[in-house]
Amino acid sequence: MLIVKKFGGTSVADKERIYNVARRCIEDYQKGNDVVVVLSAMGDTTDHLLELANEINPNPSKREMDMLLATGEQTSVALMAMAMGALDVPAVSLNAYQVAMHTTSSYSNARLKRIDSERIRHELDSRKIVIITGFQGINKYDDYTTLGRGGSDTTAVALAAALKADACEIYTDVEGVYTADPRVVPNAKKLKEITYDEMLELATLGAKVLHNRSVEMAKKYGVQLVVRSSLNTAEGTIVKEAVKMERMLVSGVAADKNTARIAVMGLKDQPGIAFKVFNLLAKRNINVDVILQSVGRDGTKDITFTVGRDNLKEAVETLEEYKDSLTAQKIEIEENVAKVSIVGAGMMTNPGVAASMFETLYNVGVNIKMISTSEIRVTVIIDETDVDKAVRAVHDAFLEE
Amino acid sequence: MLIVKKFGGTSVADKERIYNVARRCIEDYQKGNDVVVVLSAMGDTTDHLLELANEINPNPSKREMDMLLATGEQTSVALMAMAMGALDVPAVSLNAYQVAMHTTSSYSNARLKRIDSERIRHELDSRKIVIITGFQGINKYDDYTTLGRGGSDTTAVALAAALKADACEIYTDVEGVYTADPRVVPNAKKLKEITYDEMLELATLGAKVLHNRSVEMAKKYGVQLVVRSSLNTAEGTIVKEAVKMERMLVSGVAADKNTARIAVMGLKDQPGIAFKVFNLLAKRNINVDVILQSVGRDGTKDITFTVGRDNLKEAVETLEEYKDSLTAQKIEIEENVAKVSIVGAGMMTNPGVAASMFETLYNVGVNIKMISTSEIRVTVIIDETDVDKAVRAVHDAFLEE
Repeated sequence: MLIVKKFGGTSVADKERIYNVARRCIEDYQKGNDVVVVLSAMGDTTDHLLELANEINPNPSKREMDMLLATGEQTSVALMAMAMGALDVPAVSLNAYQVAMHTTSSYSNARLKRIDSERIRHELDSRKIVIITGFQGINKYDDYTTLGRGGSDTTAVALAAALKADACEIYTDVEGVYTADPRVVPNAKKLKEITYDEMLELATLGAKVLHNRSVEMAKKYGVQLVVRSSLNTAEGTIVKEAVKMERMLVSGVAADKNTARIAVMGLKDQPGIAFKVFNLLAKRNINVDVILQSVGRDGTKDITFTVGRDNLKEAVETLEEYKDSLTAQKIEIEENVAKVSIVGAGMMTNPGVAASMFETLYNVGVNIKMISTSEIRVTVIIDETDVDKAVRAVHDAFLEE
Repeated sequence: MLIVKKFGGTSVADKERIYNVARRCIEDYQKGNDVVVVLSAMGDTTDHLLELANEINPNPSKREMDMLLATGEQTSVALMAMAMGALDVPAVSLNAYQVAMHTTSSYSNARLKRIDSERIRHELDSRKIVIITGFQGINKYDDYTTLGRGGSDTTAVALAAALKADACEIYTDVEGVYTADPRVVPNAKKLKEITYDEMLELATLGAKVLHNRSVEMAKKYGVQLVVRSSLNTAEGTIVKEAVKMERMLVSGVAADKNTARIAVMGLKDQPGIAFKVFNLLAKRNINVDVILQSVGRDGTKDITFTVGRDNLKEAVETLEEYKDSLTAQKIEIEENVAKVSIVGAGMMTNPGVAASMFETLYNVGVNIKMISTSEIRVTVIIDETDVDKAVRAVHDAFLEE
């Protein structure tokens, strides 16, 4: 069996944890498996490098920043190989050049294109554990690139796809994917399995276990993922195409408090106005989420949407600046709102789910401000102060036996 | 003009020094020159990485150690490119992969084989300052190697040779090569020029300005070196094939206190005994320097030689262990001796130099224990306590007008 195992920065933050990871990998190796390990930079190394760069040049070239950041994972993988060496297990560390981890050319946020797996195969064939730098790649100019947020997860999935691995295990500081945040819902349950699409919806909605890009890539190449804890040996959650167990209507409840609502009101009802609004925000790299368009008074229309709270100020300033050309009469904001969503592949064939979610929220006195749905998700925007109550009520209604 | 400039770790140890180096390079660049900069790892980065490795595995694989150490120079070059960027000068950092710095396969002490200069040329042609990692290379397995002591100097010389540079400037914390150590001989003078061979003799003898390997390579490829200070703009010393200025009999006086003497006495006078002695030491990587063989009593012979003091204990233990098979009757040591040497290409045609050195030492009451000469060097082994006196007397005799 060929197993790809990915460990994040906190899992390799010091000697003890490095050895902990080394031993977990060696366990699989000694059962006769081929083991490929993907690592992030140790602990706060990346932050430290960013600080160092900022001291030299607060606005450095992205190309040089990637050159600098790439040293972080290289340090991790070399030390891990040394730890395995100390445990008398043959291991070899490889960086993005050595595995020819080709990406698009854009620095700091590149996308993986292809991996030449020859070197890795060669090392596995000589019965070495192969330890590979996550997060980094090389582009057509033969320069380092980095993959942006969630990069090491993506590296692991790409390697699993290229090597046709039998398993791709993503180790985190939680035991898997839960039906809700266990800090909010004490009887939240760990899911044994979840589909890619459900995981994608949950990731977007703030479940923070796997980054979306890695799940998208896993779905594209049919790489089955396991999310599990680096701290214990609990079984974790399998992320895969089709879930064989009896279909649950709802897989999980997610909440995201980093949400603010903006209403652009009294817009002239003419074509292209909505496009203008969102184009302005896109140019400033502001992500817009739940969008609602409604007819206002006097033939005008209102556009309401949510943004991350850290983008609120810039979004409003931008809209105010272009208020006239947008034909907006008024811009209103509401800072303390939140998203609560239920996700479940079972919803596709069961149209009553949204309605019973709304009923549940009504019963506990939660006022719904906006609604957004997809085939496998229902999201409501509510007051931030109602979030925990709403999550518990929805979990009770859909996820308790 | 194409200029290769090499700066050591102390020259890039912090923000201020990085900017100092950046500005010096930019000065040359703005005169219209092509500038290639070779950097070592910042300050004590390499020591820090060695510590980190030692914590994980006190006896790590050399291959992984080179993988780890290579991050040090990569950090330096990325930060330097950022500094130049902040000064609005286009710059690009390149590591051993990007310049295809091919070496022999041996880790931790590899030798440079060839450099593909295409990428460097391309960047220079687009008017960028090119900043290259010193000390590191890649071998035929596509792995990082490091070049051992003096590695970054060697990188600079190799680049100057490959690029047919017009100048190769090695920046240090001294202003150049002196006729003697200025701390011992206050009126020691900076040499304007020195030959490769003289520099080689001086380097071996403890002048510590340039590493021998870089001088050897410079000689082999006819790369003219300039040794100068990174702290001021003084002219420095040119190291080249033929010195055009009027030939000085002696170029400099060097002393090396890290010396101990070992005498292996009463050896049977049979072929191969000397070979056996030095072969034993070579196997333990112990460098032997000045060697003297003399006929002892009763047809036996004595072999006396010097080693570095840090090797003394191991050398003596080794010899004691094999005392019988070496047919040695006695092993004697003298721990506190030192080497004093005069070096000068002019000696070749002037046989009286050695004699007048001995006379000079006799006049100040310095007892000579051993003598060793080459075509351009005379070395004496004396008591360590006599060193400063000897250096001053010899400097007075040969190097004062």
